[in-house]
Amino acid sequence: MKVQSQRMPLESQDTVGESALKALLAPRSIAILGASSDFRKISGRPLKHLLDKGYAGRIYPVNPRAESIGGLRAYPSVGAIEGEVDLAIIVLPASEVLGAVRELGAKNVPAAIIFSSGFSEMGDAGRQHEREVIEAARAGGVRICGPNCLGLINAFDKVIATFSQYADAETPSGPVGFVTQSGAFGTAIAALARRRGLGLGYFVNTGNEADLNFSEIMREVICDPRVKVGAGYIEGLKNGNDFTALAEAAMAAAKPLVVTKVGRLGAGARAAASHTGSLAGDDVVFDGIARQYGVIRARNEEHMLDIVEVLSCCKLPEGNGIGLLTQSGGAGVLMADRAQEVGLSVPILQPETQKALHKVIPGFGAVGNPVDVTGQFVADPNLLLESVKLMLADPNIDVGIIWFQLMEGHVEKLVQVLKEIRDQVTKPFVVCWVAAPEAGVRALRDLGIAVLRGAEPAVDAVAALVHYAQARRTWLERSGQRKDIKIPRIDIQSGGVLSTMDGVQLLDRNGVPHTATVLAKSADEAANAARTIGYPVAVKIESPDILHKTEAGGVMLRLNNDDDVRSAFDTIMDRARRHDPAARLEGVIVQGMAGGDTEFVIGLQNDPVFGPVIMAGLGGVLIEVLRDVAFRKVPLCEGEAGDMLDDLHGKAVLGGVRGRPAVDRKALTQMICAVSRLGAALGPRLSTLDLNPIMLGPKTATAVDWLMMLNANDGSVPGHHTS
Amino acid sequence: MKVQSQRMPLESQDTVGESALKALLAPRSIAILGASSDFRKISGRPLKHLLDKGYAGRIYPVNPRAESIGGLRAYPSVGAIEGEVDLAIIVLPASEVLGAVRELGAKNVPAAIIFSSGFSEMGDAGRQHEREVIEAARAGGVRICGPNCLGLINAFDKVIATFSQYADAETPSGPVGFVTQSGAFGTAIAALARRRGLGLGYFVNTGNEADLNFSEIMREVICDPRVKVGAGYIEGLKNGNDFTALAEAAMAAAKPLVVTKVGRLGAGARAAASHTGSLAGDDVVFDGIARQYGVIRARNEEHMLDIVEVLSCCKLPEGNGIGLLTQSGGAGVLMADRAQEVGLSVPILQPETQKALHKVIPGFGAVGNPVDVTGQFVADPNLLLESVKLMLADPNIDVGIIWFQLMEGHVEKLVQVLKEIRDQVTKPFVVCWVAAPEAGVRALRDLGIAVLRGAEPAVDAVAALVHYAQARRTWLERSGQRKDIKIPRIDIQSGGVLSTMDGVQLLDRNGVPHTATVLAKSADEAANAARTIGYPVAVKIESPDILHKTEAGGVMLRLNNDDDVRSAFDTIMDRARRHDPAARLEGVIVQGMAGGDTEFVIGLQNDPVFGPVIMAGLGGVLIEVLRDVAFRKVPLCEGEAGDMLDDLHGKAVLGGVRGRPAVDRKALTQMICAVSRLGAALGPRLSTLDLNPIMLGPKTATAVDWLMMLNANDGSVPGHHTS
Repeated sequence: MKVQSQRMPLESQDTVGESALKALLAPRSIAILGASSDFRKISGRPLKHLLDKGYAGRIYPVNPRAESIGGLRAYPSVGAIEGEVDLAIIVLPASEVLGAVRELGAKNVPAAIIFSSGFSEMGDAGRQHEREVIEAARAGGVRICGPNCLGLINAFDKVIATFSQYADAETPSGPVGFVTQSGAFGTAIAALARRRGLGLGYFVNTGNEADLNFSEIMREVICDPRVKVGAGYIEGLKNGNDFTALAEAAMAAAKPLVVTKVGRLGAGARAAASHTGSLAGDDVVFDGIARQYGVIRARNEEHMLDIVEVLSCCKLPEGNGIGLLTQSGGAGVLMADRAQEVGLSVPILQPETQKALHKVIPGFGAVGNPVDVTGQFVADPNLLLESVKLMLADPNIDVGIIWFQLMEGHVEKLVQVLKEIRDQVTKPFVVCWVAAPEAGVRALRDLGIAVLRGAEPAVDAVAALVHYAQARRTWLERSGQRKDIKIPRIDIQSGGVLSTMDGVQLLDRNGVPHTATVLAKSADEAANAARTIGYPVAVKIESPDILHKTEAGGVMLRLNNDDDVRSAFDTIMDRARRHDPAARLEGVIVQGMAGGDTEFVIGLQNDPVFGPVIMAGLGGVLIEVLRDVAFRKVPLCEGEAGDMLDDLHGKAVLGGVRGRPAVDRKALTQMICAVSRLGAALGPRLSTLDLNPIMLGPKTATAVDWLMMLNANDGSVPGHHTS
Repeated sequence: MKVQSQRMPLESQDTVGESALKALLAPRSIAILGASSDFRKISGRPLKHLLDKGYAGRIYPVNPRAESIGGLRAYPSVGAIEGEVDLAIIVLPASEVLGAVRELGAKNVPAAIIFSSGFSEMGDAGRQHEREVIEAARAGGVRICGPNCLGLINAFDKVIATFSQYADAETPSGPVGFVTQSGAFGTAIAALARRRGLGLGYFVNTGNEADLNFSEIMREVICDPRVKVGAGYIEGLKNGNDFTALAEAAMAAAKPLVVTKVGRLGAGARAAASHTGSLAGDDVVFDGIARQYGVIRARNEEHMLDIVEVLSCCKLPEGNGIGLLTQSGGAGVLMADRAQEVGLSVPILQPETQKALHKVIPGFGAVGNPVDVTGQFVADPNLLLESVKLMLADPNIDVGIIWFQLMEGHVEKLVQVLKEIRDQVTKPFVVCWVAAPEAGVRALRDLGIAVLRGAEPAVDAVAALVHYAQARRTWLERSGQRKDIKIPRIDIQSGGVLSTMDGVQLLDRNGVPHTATVLAKSADEAANAARTIGYPVAVKIESPDILHKTEAGGVMLRLNNDDDVRSAFDTIMDRARRHDPAARLEGVIVQGMAGGDTEFVIGLQNDPVFGPVIMAGLGGVLIEVLRDVAFRKVPLCEGEAGDMLDDLHGKAVLGGVRGRPAVDRKALTQMICAVSRLGAALGPRLSTLDLNPIMLGPKTATAVDWLMMLNANDGSVPGHHTS
């Protein structure tokens, strides 16, 4: 277990110079260090693209071995440039980068992109070299994108500061800001976006992220008013706070953020770690935090682009009721299946809607939802128009999918009808056109209508739209609650494992309900404690040297009277002495037996990327076999605690199963919140806290056992197996 | 609960005339009833296509209002045709179909396709009409495809007996036989296949399946030696036996069968039932049986075509080790994630392989697996050739994926290298080419190399290949075992709920271990029984009128001596009398307490589509909350029983969790097999059998409670809440 403060990377500073990021992404002038007149080379391509695509700012090729490059005057050094330079592109051998960065500092260049490889991706020597470069950049006030990156495009302002293959063809601007940690894969995604007619306002590859990271750059990208949606490809985050700050900024600006993050499982995470040289982080934690902050997670590149397309075309639906309209019963069934699977509702249309649809749809069609207009709409396009209008007018429908296929020879007619639909309806809808003629797809996209390529992808993209709309509504509703969370102050000096009674104090002060717990140093004290608590009780050994009490024979349960408790004291102390003669024995803990039949677990951990995070899950096989848990960043408001419960696959258990009553959900969410505040209060002091089990009853939530470990005040991590 | 024999549809007969199916799918002559010379019309299109695409057989347009159609002599009636007719296409109004079918019978036409709609898809009147048509067809010996279908294409023999849009363009033949229950969706899928360059040898839409069903037609399709893979789109099966017979035939012929079946969940199943007018059947049952018979299930149309493409290009891999080779670390991570998720292994390459790869791959690449050859391979194609050969030569690798992107301008070079790879390696591999130039994809497909469009789809398709190869190996290994299964004879006359002791007899005779169970009619008998069984015991009321014993206060557990048992007898009998004074009380059941801590459930049901099926699942929340169960068709061999356990998400419980020992897996699989044989023996007599719970210990599997219900000998279903 490592401490967050140790992991906090060099390059993450609280304030990223806004002007430096502006200079990086929208420079008024660009110097190219190592520029070449061979436009096929990496060192030639940025200049070629800047010239070809009409960049309006000043361009300064820097190359001591040339007088002019590409028709522009070449400079022997950065220092020789007469004007101001906003951005430098460094296309030099790794060995020359350090000197170049120092020159940039001297010239007061605020931002640089380092294409060069040969840094931390190359092992220890490269890592050391990279560190030196970044130190020089810091010293000179130069912010760095890269090294080992493809650079970036700001298509709005024709800033083509990249050697990516993507730039070799047209790079149309559009409402999507795309930032990628992978160069090659990012290029492929950008090319796929272009094929769809989806304009990327920005394309940025962050490379090694030795200085500026994914989150910092994406945050600046989405601040551009011309960007409506942020799309990101992530292999591993180094700084969780930057990411949550990005997510909050995106939410505040109502700009959805769609990310594909790889390294979800063992083999992938192994590959991600070896590929990026960075810690991939625990994907389950990332997943929970993405949900918490309304970040949309896409499985892969096509899923990402489907979602981005729908988000850039559609306004947000007001609920999760989806209306499916097809010319094929089969496609309707497939979409209804999928809709249900991804949390959408496929409401049966109201009787009035069905009656009205009956009047326009042939008898062998269907009017319930899915609506099957049959192939008849080809002969009678008005049928399509009327049906879609009726379906979307149904009060239970919030968003629609219109499915059809092929239709070579009917493209114009269909596009015209869809244009009319677009003009006449207020609720959002998308088109799923399978095996579509290319002309049809282009025409619809020109009309601002999202076109998906298959039934399931269409449903998945609409689900993302619906879930984002929900997340944003919730975010707005909860903003007050989140602000009102009070973080307590914690004043514990020591580190290491807390004694049971120190744990009790911490729980008490933070409002975490637990079973009555008393330390007894003698058999009589134990019996007195048991009487005060009320029978039955449990008796457990208390020793800083015995963490696994059951293994030491140090636990006796369901004791019903004074005599049994007295003799339990003696037995347990005796067993403990034999188990570990050197162990310091503090006495025994006497505890009441908690009510409730349902086991629950709450934990706190200090995530290396995100800092203190809270985990919740149902006890038993659900957590131990199925790993059915939810994570969030602390602290939480009550609504967020409730979301954690809803994340659990086994959540039905909380509603009462196998003859048990429902548990007290409010008591449980309050407990989760209390623990989350404790986690926030501990901050870097947190090592781990496990409340396991917590017993849930119809009116109670009670922690029965706990293990807490703190880092020492100086941030060091105590060994936790002292015995 | 319905009985299978009641559900057995009219049209399912054991012997489908092979010659009739041959006449349907490869006719030597075709009559078109209702043929029109307007080739834009449904009634004109088949003739147009037959003529245009060069059908070599005789064509007889039948239309009393024309002398000639499309340059061919038209006949006033079928009877007027001088030669033999193999296949009739009926394009008449619904009202004229019955007469036409009678004429076909008189003319001894063996097969007909009915395009016409207006039958069972139109409600009760249509259903009645359809029944009359089928009766006439039976009487005349005519087998029917449809009605309400798009017809079919046999592209090998240019039989274009359809009005589907798909036929409007080229219909190249190829190794894929595609049969679809949906016309519109099937047409879209066929068009998508064509776009991929995937030739469909057959395209068949089965429509209402009033006579010939999906399985019967697909079985004939895969018998064609020119077909290598069967692809199906299913909305609902009417006859489970035909489907399993198809699956067995496909397995025997080593022709993989890939199906997309919709109606997986509530909303989808609702839509499927309303769309097809058929019972969608329980999808969980279908899913289990598909696994059992090695049928590959595809989620959607693109997934289906991805799998079909890989199956038609690749030979079967010998294991599940996948080698991933990319020019992008990110894509490698994404694929490694997905591979693990779908049950593939991503083995780290052997040290010798890594060493050899190091010699050809640049230093910033990766050699572990995923292998990252970096963009360098563009300059040095040999790098790609050598790396792929080395990776595939690794003994832990069974199949490879080669990933790259874009490469406009390098297509020829890449295609050439991939051709060399194809010629030089023996293990199967596929290419994933993201945002590929169209020319590259076509060139590779012409070389017989499967090309996928994205990283996840590539892994998913390879996973299907691997799993099919495993399924086929297993099928061959088990063929002896399956033949050796002995089905016992069951001789029980009565139907309804069986008494506990009749249940004991059935379990005993079929080798299903259960806890010691004795019926006692007096307190003394109960005490004697308890002494014989051994304490502790449970005592339960026995009455044909009390099925919910606990609710009636009729269960007492953990009784430890004779006195307690005697008094339990009195108490329970007394409570039962008060609970239901009219109930017939047989006495009490005395049972030993079974060993083992892990609860399991085995059930038998009579599925309306598949007949007797067996269900297995772990007790507790896993079955009650997460519905974590597996289904198979009975009877089972032991390997198949083991597969059921491996299907369970919570299977780790069987290996021992929370301090419990592993259960006796062999005893459990033997028990599942014994119950499966019992299910097979009961056949249509089976209503339900629940063994719940079964207690599993380290050396035992013991049924503790059971409820059995049989259908009466005459097939009628007894009411089972008689009290």
